[in-house]
Amino acid sequence: MLRAEVVKIDATITRFLESRARAVEDPFVRHYHDTMKQYMLAGGKRMRPFLVIQAFKGLTGDNGYEGIYQPSISVEFLHNASLIHDDIIDRDDMRRGTPAFHFRFKRYYEDAGYEHADAGHFGTTMGILGGDSAFFLGMEALLCTFPSSLIKEAMALYTQAFHEICDGVLMEMNFVQIRTVSEAQYMKMVSLKTAALIEKSLLIGAAFARASNSSRSALSTYARNLGIAFQVKDDILGSFGDEKKTGKPSAGDIKDGKKTLLLLNALEKAKKADQDFLKSTVGKEGISPAEIARVRSIFSGSGAVAYCEGLIKKCSDAAVNAMDSLDCIMRQDQRAALKGLVESNIIREK
Amino acid sequence: MLRAEVVKIDATITRFLESRARAVEDPFVRHYHDTMKQYMLAGGKRMRPFLVIQAFKGLTGDNGYEGIYQPSISVEFLHNASLIHDDIIDRDDMRRGTPAFHFRFKRYYEDAGYEHADAGHFGTTMGILGGDSAFFLGMEALLCTFPSSLIKEAMALYTQAFHEICDGVLMEMNFVQIRTVSEAQYMKMVSLKTAALIEKSLLIGAAFARASNSSRSALSTYARNLGIAFQVKDDILGSFGDEKKTGKPSAGDIKDGKKTLLLLNALEKAKKADQDFLKSTVGKEGISPAEIARVRSIFSGSGAVAYCEGLIKKCSDAAVNAMDSLDCIMRQDQRAALKGLVESNIIREK
Repeated sequence: MLRAEVVKIDATITRFLESRARAVEDPFVRHYHDTMKQYMLAGGKRMRPFLVIQAFKGLTGDNGYEGIYQPSISVEFLHNASLIHDDIIDRDDMRRGTPAFHFRFKRYYEDAGYEHADAGHFGTTMGILGGDSAFFLGMEALLCTFPSSLIKEAMALYTQAFHEICDGVLMEMNFVQIRTVSEAQYMKMVSLKTAALIEKSLLIGAAFARASNSSRSALSTYARNLGIAFQVKDDILGSFGDEKKTGKPSAGDIKDGKKTLLLLNALEKAKKADQDFLKSTVGKEGISPAEIARVRSIFSGSGAVAYCEGLIKKCSDAAVNAMDSLDCIMRQDQRAALKGLVESNIIREK
Repeated sequence: MLRAEVVKIDATITRFLESRARAVEDPFVRHYHDTMKQYMLAGGKRMRPFLVIQAFKGLTGDNGYEGIYQPSISVEFLHNASLIHDDIIDRDDMRRGTPAFHFRFKRYYEDAGYEHADAGHFGTTMGILGGDSAFFLGMEALLCTFPSSLIKEAMALYTQAFHEICDGVLMEMNFVQIRTVSEAQYMKMVSLKTAALIEKSLLIGAAFARASNSSRSALSTYARNLGIAFQVKDDILGSFGDEKKTGKPSAGDIKDGKKTLLLLNALEKAKKADQDFLKSTVGKEGISPAEIARVRSIFSGSGAVAYCEGLIKKCSDAAVNAMDSLDCIMRQDQRAALKGLVESNIIREK
């Protein structure tokens, strides 16, 4: 992704949050707003605003219009709102190598040395509010200088993005409980949880660009395929990734018993004895290194890894083709940038 | 409030949620949507949509326009989103005599008999998502058939309402920790936590009615005063209310050590010895009935009760005057309905 765009996106987030915080008098409320700013600026690749901007610039042919930056950060707030709430749900204290939003307030409470301390619940409380605030900050960022009819369209996409992500999260939560998950269910979940916000980010850019339906449809095809390629790559890294590179525990998905495509596919293809081993071992408490090694070897030997890599390749090709179909409609620079995201997903190690 | 309006508001909520749920296939996601519908229809006075509708009908003079019902429910969703999250924060399992949203899912989990059961955390998770969904359902309800420029205005009011409520909740949370709270701080907190959504509901109706700035300003004055009168009445009921009527624990605010206006005012006016008693007793664990009786007697004897009742009277008069200032601008029926809310607050016992 273009470094110059990321710098401008960060500057827009900073300006937007500072203009909001200016009026706050109460010291605790001010601390809350400061924490939101620090959290938002602590990291993040800014892929989603980048998508809004590329779609807009590419489809209007206008590379210099600054008015797109404010609405572009809406989807970054939506994404971060989900992360803030997810970190409470998943009990993750760290995010991007820095404290999770709720964890920052757990520490604040502990540092203040309050009596009857229930720092954990205080952190949860602040995390719930923090996610809520981020959802609304995103909405507010959409209330920009574009014509109201376009803002209404963008708002509809923003609400759809949330509802789809939420349905995807619910499906995934339920995967933990149900015995068998089909590939179709997995694909549906990924298209909601991961692909929807990629798609809606592009479509928000396209809405502001007043793009044609066929252009929008090509962007949706790109997004759906990139979303699947992205999630399946995550699945591979979650079982085979190098801890030092991913920053996440090695074989984390195997330890957690996550119903990844690797596991679903291996459960279909592996020999009966190996299937039984997977069923009894993946997600088991206190799983041993030898057991993890055997799970990995079943994933490889059954052809599940090859299947997932093939799917990534197929989806990546489809995403690139969707971009190529916009030749003469979308500027070359932005199409190249979007194709670049597809390529870098294939080779990423984190 | 007019029963006929409440029936129409409920029918609008039902239709809106049913049209959204129709497309859902996954059984667990469907259960989630069903639970949202049951929760939304389990109770609630619908005061906030009622305010939207009264402002719109009163200021347009159009008593029969049906298009106002869908956007009117936006503020009911916003209100319920806050309640769903508040019930997690306050660890309240019941709401309006029925299970809180998160508690419905805690039970669902227990009933399903899942292994490694952590039903409480599952409930919290679903409550976080449920509140999030309700915020977005409200936003979506605003994307209605009115002109886009008015929808943009309404959206801005919707986001402002959230941010003000959130700041108010943060202030109130911090009141627990700080030693002294001034009346000015209390008033600021109430104007954010309670009055803001009353005001924004009216202003959303006024926006769709394309009302003048002076009409909007009169509605704001009405709302600010009704909000304060409402909260101070709640404070009195929280210390003196009849458990059988309020449905809440008797003297709940005294037991919880809540910094109500009654307490703040008594701490100013009472004799030194009584002040010390209040400081050491209100919010104390295992407070005795005799101690509660003495707290109440200090509240009365110091003049704090009279002060609060005087303030309710003053604010109620100001709210009614604001309505009277709209004579010839706002229809008589709706002005009467809004004045009725002020009157019924004064005499309510729950």
